[in-house]
Amino acid sequence: MSAEGRAPAPTAGTSRTLPDGGADRVARARLSRVAEPGDELVWHLVQSLGAPAVLAGITDGSLGGEVIDGRRVPESRVEAWKSRVNPDRFESDDAAAVRSGLRLVVPGDSEWPTSLDQLAAVGDEPASVRTAAGRVLVPPLVLWIRGSVDIRGSCLRSVTVVGARAATGYGEHVAAELGFGLAERGFTVVSGAAYGIDAAAHRGALAGGAPTLAVVACGADVAYPRGHEGLLARIASAGAVLSELPPGAATTRSRLLQRNRLVAALTRGTVVVEAAMRSGTRTTARYALRLGRHVMAVPGPVTSSASAGCHAMLKPGGGAVLVTDAEDIADLVGDLGRDAAQERRGDERPGDGLGAAELAVFDALPVRGGAGPASIAAVAGLDLPSVRSALGALVLKGLAEPLSGGFRLSAAARGSRAGGGS
Amino acid sequence: MSAEGRAPAPTAGTSRTLPDGGADRVARARLSRVAEPGDELVWHLVQSLGAPAVLAGITDGSLGGEVIDGRRVPESRVEAWKSRVNPDRFESDDAAAVRSGLRLVVPGDSEWPTSLDQLAAVGDEPASVRTAAGRVLVPPLVLWIRGSVDIRGSCLRSVTVVGARAATGYGEHVAAELGFGLAERGFTVVSGAAYGIDAAAHRGALAGGAPTLAVVACGADVAYPRGHEGLLARIASAGAVLSELPPGAATTRSRLLQRNRLVAALTRGTVVVEAAMRSGTRTTARYALRLGRHVMAVPGPVTSSASAGCHAMLKPGGGAVLVTDAEDIADLVGDLGRDAAQERRGDERPGDGLGAAELAVFDALPVRGGAGPASIAAVAGLDLPSVRSALGALVLKGLAEPLSGGFRLSAAARGSRAGGGS
Repeated sequence: MSAEGRAPAPTAGTSRTLPDGGADRVARARLSRVAEPGDELVWHLVQSLGAPAVLAGITDGSLGGEVIDGRRVPESRVEAWKSRVNPDRFESDDAAAVRSGLRLVVPGDSEWPTSLDQLAAVGDEPASVRTAAGRVLVPPLVLWIRGSVDIRGSCLRSVTVVGARAATGYGEHVAAELGFGLAERGFTVVSGAAYGIDAAAHRGALAGGAPTLAVVACGADVAYPRGHEGLLARIASAGAVLSELPPGAATTRSRLLQRNRLVAALTRGTVVVEAAMRSGTRTTARYALRLGRHVMAVPGPVTSSASAGCHAMLKPGGGAVLVTDAEDIADLVGDLGRDAAQERRGDERPGDGLGAAELAVFDALPVRGGAGPASIAAVAGLDLPSVRSALGALVLKGLAEPLSGGFRLSAAARGSRAGGGS
Repeated sequence: MSAEGRAPAPTAGTSRTLPDGGADRVARARLSRVAEPGDELVWHLVQSLGAPAVLAGITDGSLGGEVIDGRRVPESRVEAWKSRVNPDRFESDDAAAVRSGLRLVVPGDSEWPTSLDQLAAVGDEPASVRTAAGRVLVPPLVLWIRGSVDIRGSCLRSVTVVGARAATGYGEHVAAELGFGLAERGFTVVSGAAYGIDAAAHRGALAGGAPTLAVVACGADVAYPRGHEGLLARIASAGAVLSELPPGAATTRSRLLQRNRLVAALTRGTVVVEAAMRSGTRTTARYALRLGRHVMAVPGPVTSSASAGCHAMLKPGGGAVLVTDAEDIADLVGDLGRDAAQERRGDERPGDGLGAAELAVFDALPVRGGAGPASIAAVAGLDLPSVRSALGALVLKGLAEPLSGGFRLSAAARGSRAGGGS
């Protein structure tokens, strides 16, 4: 193909008019059917040539054998893409999109979440974290969206909450609490609409009254898993269901892994609630780490295999930060000042905050009867002036009370003095 | 008092004969009755003058007003100590020690755990971690020991396991498992013999067949808590009960806090199993941090207030490392090589470890019937040579099987392919 055939390259991430009369949008929509999610070569070709030229070069086979920006395009890859070029299918995609109320968002649209473009900046990962999902990450070509919420706006203050499908009651409870607490704090909760943790997080967010986004590894109009048809409808009506796959596309394992890169890239941080040692959830956390996002994990009982992956992430070198509630998460990923967590304290107990001499005198005070300062000094091993000063402070604090010329423990302090933990 | 009155200064931590005919041992034993645990001034005076001279200077009052190594000794402090100098009491201490089978270990004895001497090297702590137990730490003057195990030897490979008295069933289960697993690995488990976590750790260690040491905040002959009389006897017979307090001494809150410095200093690392936000256990962890020991915490449900202190220690800046079992602990504190934990992996699953093309082909394989390479290529979005190569690899791995000119998923791989987590 010749250079004259090239459409203007889309400038990802900037708002613009459509100089090509919508040709870029249409070509990207077709390419989302022709190429699998995360196809590195197609994405680079679109960056170099523009989507219409890439689609044309696939359709007539002319891209095969070309060298574009130093990358050779194997004929065999072009043949594989070409086998999926099917005008009837494209038409039925359009019809399905209209029928299901899907809309298409592409780079350059004001609604395009520019955080996704950062996927292109993530290079080879070290061998230790290399996954079956591929070493090089690329942004999606398009987003198919079911729901009316503004995707970019809702992702500006957002958190991903993901975890095991085989979750425990504990995990689902915690995920729902996090979803609710984050929604209450104005965070959009992003997850994958899977059974278990994902669903609990979405449900908590829906209850909390903020938009929640489900990123799926099938068409945005597909009810997968089947049992979540109702949940997906509620998510779409209060937030959005989104996918880089065209309408009607089925879920596969490789698509699930590629979906995870979007879940990680869309938000400021990823929280893992429960994950077994080997799990797709941990892939999401690795993507988030590579993207420089906050990665957090919720601990659980060490006797629960459902938390083993979280604990591995929380051990040295695991890359995650321990969080226990929405406040912790908001503190890490939120705006400073607005979300900074207050320092937590346990309940105050009598004796807390006493100096060494006051504590020794407090310990030496009798429960019944009254002891004079000299006798208290002998018990406490302190000198008389220190004891007198400490007694004054303890009386002021309501921990000691005068009795028949001496002092004893106050009623309020009694019963709370036996020992202080190991 | 004059310089001639000074006994030779004990050289802490080195084996030696007793040039003073045992006067140092006796004087230290008396001082353990006269001064409270952790008394900084007495310890420094003993370092400067020797224990016999300090005891004599207290008994005749001549130490009052003296300036020793730049420290002024207030008369009032000397009076307070003097009020506890009681020859009858000293005699009854000796009798009680003999009756209960206690022995005395002092610095310079080959059994003295020299790790305790490091307490003297720990200076002022920053205000943020300042505790009621005092800012400056000093080693104990003596150890009273019930039990025949060699204290120094058993502490060379040892771990402290401590936690809440108000422990949950989960916490006690984990503490017992840790105690057992550490004992099995040849570690001495050190704890405080309190109810809850401490007791569970001791019991686990006893079951695991290694010595366990209980450091108590009362006389080593005192059954405190009362309900642990039997447990303390078992610990003494399989390991040791030790204290810096003389026989018969009672537990007080300030003594418990001072006891915690010994628990932290004796071992290579401290593990906290359950702790509320405010607890003496966290004091032990802070001492261990100041001493440069490993500090570890076991997570639990975030819904459990008994684990809140552990989680706080595991958050950024909390200073602790997350551990889930004895292997983790041995890996951190043990000898390299002998204890290095094997990298853990979950169960292998079909599809694990496949390359991107193999995974896409694996996903595209039909369960029933057989599909040809071209049809698989179209489904997988790959070129024919890649599909043929991937099919070969999948057949070799037992994940695909030939069928009527095509290929399908192998029987072994069926049922394991649906999705890969969120």
